Amino acid sequence: MRYELYYWPGIQGRGEFVRLALEDAGADYVEVARRPRGTAAMSRFMESRSIKRPPFAPPFLKAGKLVIAQTANILFFLGPRLRLAPKSDAGRLWAHQLQLTIADWVAEVHDTHHPIAGSLYYEDQKPEAKRRAEDFTTERLPKFLNYFEQILDRNGSRVLVGNAVSYVDLSLFQMIEGLRYAFPHAMTKQERKSRRVLALHDRIAARPRLAAYLASERRLPFNLDGIFRHYPELDNRS
Amino acid sequence: MRYELYYWPGIQGRGEFVRLALEDAGADYVEVARRPRGTAAMSRFMESRSIKRPPFAPPFLKAGKLVIAQTANILFFLGPRLRLAPKSDAGRLWAHQLQLTIADWVAEVHDTHHPIAGSLYYEDQKPEAKRRAEDFTTERLPKFLNYFEQILDRNGSRVLVGNAVSYVDLSLFQMIEGLRYAFPHAMTKQERKSRRVLALHDRIAARPRLAAYLASERRLPFNLDGIFRHYPELDNRS
Repeated sequence: MRYELYYWPGIQGRGEFVRLALEDAGADYVEVARRPRGTAAMSRFMESRSIKRPPFAPPFLKAGKLVIAQTANILFFLGPRLRLAPKSDAGRLWAHQLQLTIADWVAEVHDTHHPIAGSLYYEDQKPEAKRRAEDFTTERLPKFLNYFEQILDRNGSRVLVGNAVSYVDLSLFQMIEGLRYAFPHAMTKQERKSRRVLALHDRIAARPRLAAYLASERRLPFNLDGIFRHYPELDNRS
Repeated sequence: MRYELYYWPGIQGRGEFVRLALEDAGADYVEVARRPRGTAAMSRFMESRSIKRPPFAPPFLKAGKLVIAQTANILFFLGPRLRLAPKSDAGRLWAHQLQLTIADWVAEVHDTHHPIAGSLYYEDQKPEAKRRAEDFTTERLPKFLNYFEQILDRNGSRVLVGNAVSYVDLSLFQMIEGLRYAFPHAMTKQERKSRRVLALHDRIAARPRLAAYLASERRLPFNLDGIFRHYPELDNRS
């Protein structure tokens, strides 16, 4: 099946979590909004009165007649199809639970630079962003990293869920990539306590199809429009 | 099966979305943390080294040997068991997608009074809360309400998904309850544009088992510790 992925062009964003799974599996997919006039096509689709089940926001995936939105929901759907999910129902629920915790983490990262409103510029909420980022880097970032470190420890394995790489491992890889870009100082302080997470990151980066993707032009660089943004004033140096 | 629900006592919070499904279905469940020394039991459970798959945060549900966290994930699991979910896989993914959109909405409601840090008091982030609540009541609240109004319209039915009441309808009921408590002025302004959503709210409130629950002592009142909080200064009057 050829999947159609709809997401804002120009940033990695939430779409990247889906992309990593598709790329790692060598799946056949197209990025609809990266085509000429693709963003217009995406908006038309979302606003069309003929769509019975419209997404609230990108990313969304078309798989045959199905239209699926919400990043974690897309991955829950794709996981078994891409052989990136456990076989048992209990295992799939657990993988999904971890993915939802990552989704919460992503939202908190976003709010470090947009604590007041997504519709305002960063420059219009800078003092608030500094306060929120200070809390994020000193409280929340260690809490999330320590949680995933513990999950790896308790699983007694080189992956988060069961014995095989799942989409959750790919998503944790992406979190580390993004956090290192956005908060290099805060991350350096954490590295010593996150050895299992960082080792997982390195093993994921070395997977052949993923390494090829990361080196390709399809992998957009991080920038100041995405979810992970590097504003030095938000990166705690204390 | 007797389910065990773990959530902070004293507030409705995210646990309420699970509670409404259990109550509407007449399921057998216990509220572990509302028992004497229950909060300590909940913390002990979360911190125990013997739990292989620890939750990041409450609510979580024990169902036999399974421990499931993340509100939307719990409802995805419970839905079919409580006959509050569609039968088809596609229908269940769609219901879950809507539930995840509600989860995002809940997080935004929370951040109206805690835009800087969950670990700080409201009083320590009041100016930021006023700015965030202003954006929430004028931009985000109408966007979410209009979205669900549209879903009801497109489904051509009295429920959000398919032809039967699902857990998503119960959750939308709870959103309206909470929003009316927290933002009475902003909600009054929206009522005219949200007729389908409000009619759904009223039909859900009249379901016999749910009405009995809402009139019982098990239904805690909204208060200034929960997710939905009424601070008059955050309720847009313009």
